[in-house]
Amino acid sequence: MVKAGRAKKSEKESDKDIKALSVKKNENFSEWFSEIVQKAELADLRYNVKGFLVFQPWSVLSMEKMYSCLENALRRKEHKPYFFPTLIPESNLKREAEHVKGFTPEVFWVNEAGESKLSERLALRPTSETAFYQMFSLWIRSYKDLPYKTYQRANVFRYETKATRPFLRSREFHWIEAHCAHATEKDAMKQVYEDMETTKEILHDVFGLPFIFFERPAWDRFAGAVRTFAADVLNPDGKVVQQPSTHLLSQDFAKAFDVKYKDKNGEEKYVWITCYGPAVSRIFASVVIVHGDDKGLRFPWAIAPLQVAIVPISDDSSVIAKAEEIRKKLAEFASVEIDKTEKSAGEKFNYWEMKGVPVRIDLGAKEIKERNLTVFRRDLNTKTQVPEKEISEYVKKLAEESGKNLTKQADSLFEKKINNSLNIKEIKKVVEEGGIARCGFCSVEKEGASCAEVIEKETGARVRGTRLEKENAKGNCAICGKKAENIVYIARDY
Amino acid sequence: MVKAGRAKKSEKESDKDIKALSVKKNENFSEWFSEIVQKAELADLRYNVKGFLVFQPWSVLSMEKMYSCLENALRRKEHKPYFFPTLIPESNLKREAEHVKGFTPEVFWVNEAGESKLSERLALRPTSETAFYQMFSLWIRSYKDLPYKTYQRANVFRYETKATRPFLRSREFHWIEAHCAHATEKDAMKQVYEDMETTKEILHDVFGLPFIFFERPAWDRFAGAVRTFAADVLNPDGKVVQQPSTHLLSQDFAKAFDVKYKDKNGEEKYVWITCYGPAVSRIFASVVIVHGDDKGLRFPWAIAPLQVAIVPISDDSSVIAKAEEIRKKLAEFASVEIDKTEKSAGEKFNYWEMKGVPVRIDLGAKEIKERNLTVFRRDLNTKTQVPEKEISEYVKKLAEESGKNLTKQADSLFEKKINNSLNIKEIKKVVEEGGIARCGFCSVEKEGASCAEVIEKETGARVRGTRLEKENAKGNCAICGKKAENIVYIARDY
Repeated sequence: MVKAGRAKKSEKESDKDIKALSVKKNENFSEWFSEIVQKAELADLRYNVKGFLVFQPWSVLSMEKMYSCLENALRRKEHKPYFFPTLIPESNLKREAEHVKGFTPEVFWVNEAGESKLSERLALRPTSETAFYQMFSLWIRSYKDLPYKTYQRANVFRYETKATRPFLRSREFHWIEAHCAHATEKDAMKQVYEDMETTKEILHDVFGLPFIFFERPAWDRFAGAVRTFAADVLNPDGKVVQQPSTHLLSQDFAKAFDVKYKDKNGEEKYVWITCYGPAVSRIFASVVIVHGDDKGLRFPWAIAPLQVAIVPISDDSSVIAKAEEIRKKLAEFASVEIDKTEKSAGEKFNYWEMKGVPVRIDLGAKEIKERNLTVFRRDLNTKTQVPEKEISEYVKKLAEESGKNLTKQADSLFEKKINNSLNIKEIKKVVEEGGIARCGFCSVEKEGASCAEVIEKETGARVRGTRLEKENAKGNCAICGKKAENIVYIARDY
Repeated sequence: MVKAGRAKKSEKESDKDIKALSVKKNENFSEWFSEIVQKAELADLRYNVKGFLVFQPWSVLSMEKMYSCLENALRRKEHKPYFFPTLIPESNLKREAEHVKGFTPEVFWVNEAGESKLSERLALRPTSETAFYQMFSLWIRSYKDLPYKTYQRANVFRYETKATRPFLRSREFHWIEAHCAHATEKDAMKQVYEDMETTKEILHDVFGLPFIFFERPAWDRFAGAVRTFAADVLNPDGKVVQQPSTHLLSQDFAKAFDVKYKDKNGEEKYVWITCYGPAVSRIFASVVIVHGDDKGLRFPWAIAPLQVAIVPISDDSSVIAKAEEIRKKLAEFASVEIDKTEKSAGEKFNYWEMKGVPVRIDLGAKEIKERNLTVFRRDLNTKTQVPEKEISEYVKKLAEESGKNLTKQADSLFEKKINNSLNIKEIKKVVEEGGIARCGFCSVEKEGASCAEVIEKETGARVRGTRLEKENAKGNCAICGKKAENIVYIARDY
């Protein structure tokens, strides 16, 4: 029976072709990504508002698990959840000059409601600093209220003028924004480090994404921030995607919204504010891109929409009964589905490989007779025979192992892409080969901006910043030849 | 120590007064509700866009649990989750005539983005029929695709012209909308019944809300529906709140959006569509209102933001250590917090009663010495001594019992409020006493509309509809005296 099932695969090649990916990830990444979004049914781009998409069940189920992981981590670290209004008055945005300058070109504006014209335009939140901090000024009174740690799960809107791409850059996206107020700059910086730790715990250790957390150079900070830190993930086309960023905001925000507290001596002081924004729908894109292969998606166990697929290779009643028995056993700790569609075994194999289900169990008369199950693991694309009575233990072990294995594969690929460069020619070579260039650089403060411009003009890549772990710069700036104050990393982005 | 703790309560009366509710629920419901929203810290109404509010942690934590209960039920029943765009083009709304007429007066419109004026106005979704069904027309092809069962968790926007009230009627609220397409009207009606069953399973059996599911009369249907069913919950002021409604939509929707399928014979047919909308933030209002008492909130165990509060009545290290030991034990199956604030024991008791935590454990030197814990249950407002070694079993039992008990209390109060009425005078008396009047009625089809108007004019109350369980009408219409075709229920609303 197993053989029969496999034989069918080639009979159906024509059918398979339409449903399989037509390009290889490393040969034509852009097309590979477009195809996987469509063929794995992640999002439908045919919605009739430009730059907006319909998230389909297979992405929503995974994003919901991502939300749980992130929200649980934030709550464990004593952030409290809020739901703020989607609409923010224009006057709020205007209260912090840098911020309004940074966001105004991207704002969707509501100016009518029912039959009335509104007296003031309302922004669809592009981010919620100016909503949260006016409330902070009502809620925070004393040093005893600090740190004041909040977050909300929300959808945000940006009228992107660059080309949109599903999940990576859409005009509406789904994220978490965490806003915190602190007594001192030092406390605030502790929060920034905590945010980066949370990112590592969840994005790297659970979702399996490799990244470097950079401090952005002076000319590339968030609108209104004095220090900006962001995790860059690398795509196969050599472009980086900015994942969670965390910011030490300028006290201009606290001043603009009058967020003050009384310290132990009764003296009034402005708070220090930090904000942190993991964009779940964009993180989902990185999970698709980093782990996916030429057969389709590969999900880490913890965020797989489905963890185990059971494929009966025959509709014999004894096979179906056994499938049901195994399903029940595994359902105690995993999400499990039996594929009862009318497709051939080969089509079913292809389907679940495209869908990225971590574990597949193929079940035919042979398996039942020998009491040995055929288990396919998507992280390695290999099959093993597992004695039926050991199946629960085996799948539990795989749950642990397969996620770690995906992370290891991704980490090792990422490491190889980082290359030292001594001059602009070498930088250009590294980024053209799809890597991240590492080099000595005069300064990430304002005075270095002109060298960064040279790099951008010559290579199309940008200075991403310096690593958190202080790296000692030796030698000279790869551009101007002056003494290098920093070691920076350079890569292209979208 | 226990005594000392309790004694402090009266010492702090002045402080307590500010934090306690100043009115009784049954004497001044409207003020009671306003106060509980503020004093239990459920929402802050000081946000600077009229009709919008900031949902605070204590409501968000509970609403998140409500979302889980509802979403799990929908997924169990094979609905698939989506995220649709918040923005819907005006032309979509216009494609179904009744629908646009019903919603246009309530729509917030986006007409600018960045520096550009949009060529077409975009609605902030007031509900998403016209977004979902254009995609249904792309997704549904064959009878094999049916039933097509979807849902999304979303925030929706309505420019309410009536007075807004936190949670009950705001201009932005949080809900689930489930949209399904079916092959036949009969299948669609099966879905409508399934939706009502889901409502009973979750809103009644888990959240403890008593309601009657009515079929609305002809003049009170959802914009574009041929049959509308809705659950009415009764407030102490005698006004009903409409909770989840489910609708059999007119095929005009399927026609407007060209949602067709090929049946077994290859014949093209329009689908039958149903939609179901549990408004989580409004359901939260009913939980507050139905279960709350003169001390504050009372949460059913399953949706309590916190399930157990441990109050150490002394900061003696042995008391704190014991509190920690108990916390760990209970944390295996419950959410537990130790109240380590600097308040007096009395203030702590009042605080947790206001917050509606189902179980409180008071812990002083006496309790430790006697190895007997003092357990306060909020559903009955009683204290019991429980041997320390039995605490886990006891709290587990309470988790079951206290929720059921809240439901029973609410059900019995609700039953008493429904009263038979023979004529307009009796109807008026019942609704003025805060009840729901039940009477014979000529017809819930169009021809009964004039009698419904008489009722509204004379009593300020409206005909809510007929019960699902067919009730045999005997005698005459309470208004016009013609033969009664139906038995209807009449109540005031907001």
